[in-house]
Amino acid sequence: MNTQQAMAQPVLVNGLDVQAAQETVEGLKADASLAKFQFRARNTWVNGGENRSTIRDFYGAGREDDSRMTDFEFVNGEPPILLGNNEGANPVEFLLHGLAGCVTTTLILHATMRGITIRKLSTELDGDIDLYGLLGLDPNVSPGYQEIRIRMKIEADCSDEELEDLLATAKAHSPVCNTVCRPVPVTIERVTA
Amino acid sequence: MNTQQAMAQPVLVNGLDVQAAQETVEGLKADASLAKFQFRARNTWVNGGENRSTIRDFYGAGREDDSRMTDFEFVNGEPPILLGNNEGANPVEFLLHGLAGCVTTTLILHATMRGITIRKLSTELDGDIDLYGLLGLDPNVSPGYQEIRIRMKIEADCSDEELEDLLATAKAHSPVCNTVCRPVPVTIERVTA
Repeated sequence: MNTQQAMAQPVLVNGLDVQAAQETVEGLKADASLAKFQFRARNTWVNGGENRSTIRDFYGAGREDDSRMTDFEFVNGEPPILLGNNEGANPVEFLLHGLAGCVTTTLILHATMRGITIRKLSTELDGDIDLYGLLGLDPNVSPGYQEIRIRMKIEADCSDEELEDLLATAKAHSPVCNTVCRPVPVTIERVTA
Repeated sequence: MNTQQAMAQPVLVNGLDVQAAQETVEGLKADASLAKFQFRARNTWVNGGENRSTIRDFYGAGREDDSRMTDFEFVNGEPPILLGNNEGANPVEFLLHGLAGCVTTTLILHATMRGITIRKLSTELDGDIDLYGLLGLDPNVSPGYQEIRIRMKIEADCSDEELEDLLATAKAHSPVCNTVCRPVPVTIERVTA
């Protein structure tokens, strides 16, 4: 491989293009408005505990994204014990999927920026919910998760101390983890148009 | 249809079996331990911003659920502007899917318990994220959603006042909405086994 070819090959660490990541960070530092993103979903109730979302467009880096050729579609359902037919995973399980993915991607991103190679990473999550909250049977019981626990297996070319710091960074900077850990305002408005 | 056949047919309101719902609520009132659920997910990092979850088992109503014959599988990805290849929706978008579904299902459940028939229900959601939080560029910027807005179109056989009360009930009792609105502790533990 000659020098020109070598220069044309992106350097990947953990599957991320290091130069692209650095350029993105420099671009965001130079113009803070590019860091403002808006994500969206549209959902339609089907029947009982079944409903479907489509996800495609979002705003970020100063413009509407047009990179997705088709919609992503996801189905929420409920198991029979919760009056459904397992039409899909249920909404609190999708939350765990998003949380797992966000902590993982945040860790991979910060590891890459530190030059740390991750060899393997997997997580197991569980969280407790008391249906008394959902059903309004006890005003002292919160309807949501009481706590969510993530157990992470990770292999990387760094010290245990660096790994622990990466885990702490992922927890502190993951958007979904932060959305769960922090009180985030949600508004529901009825529209007729 | 004779009386015996009529009695054998479950009465569905909004696709939910009303008698089963009432029996579930009575059962939970009689034994609060049955209301304790634990939901779970397992996730494996693939490469870059891509990772995959499997979801199947959970604990609830006093036992391990065995109603699902196969795993649900979901892929998190990132768009090119966030260094990915649109391998899937991204984690903060999956959070919106879970939130939309949970508010919808909670509303349907409470409408059914009130004998209100919902004809149509759809939602549009959006939420703002500033990447300065994810990247650690400004400690004053939270990495998660700053706010999430849900716009709901709903048609039902009840008054506007009853609809507004249903929306408020859904917001107050939805497990995912409550998990987002309230600070929920998340722990990340490194395991080697």
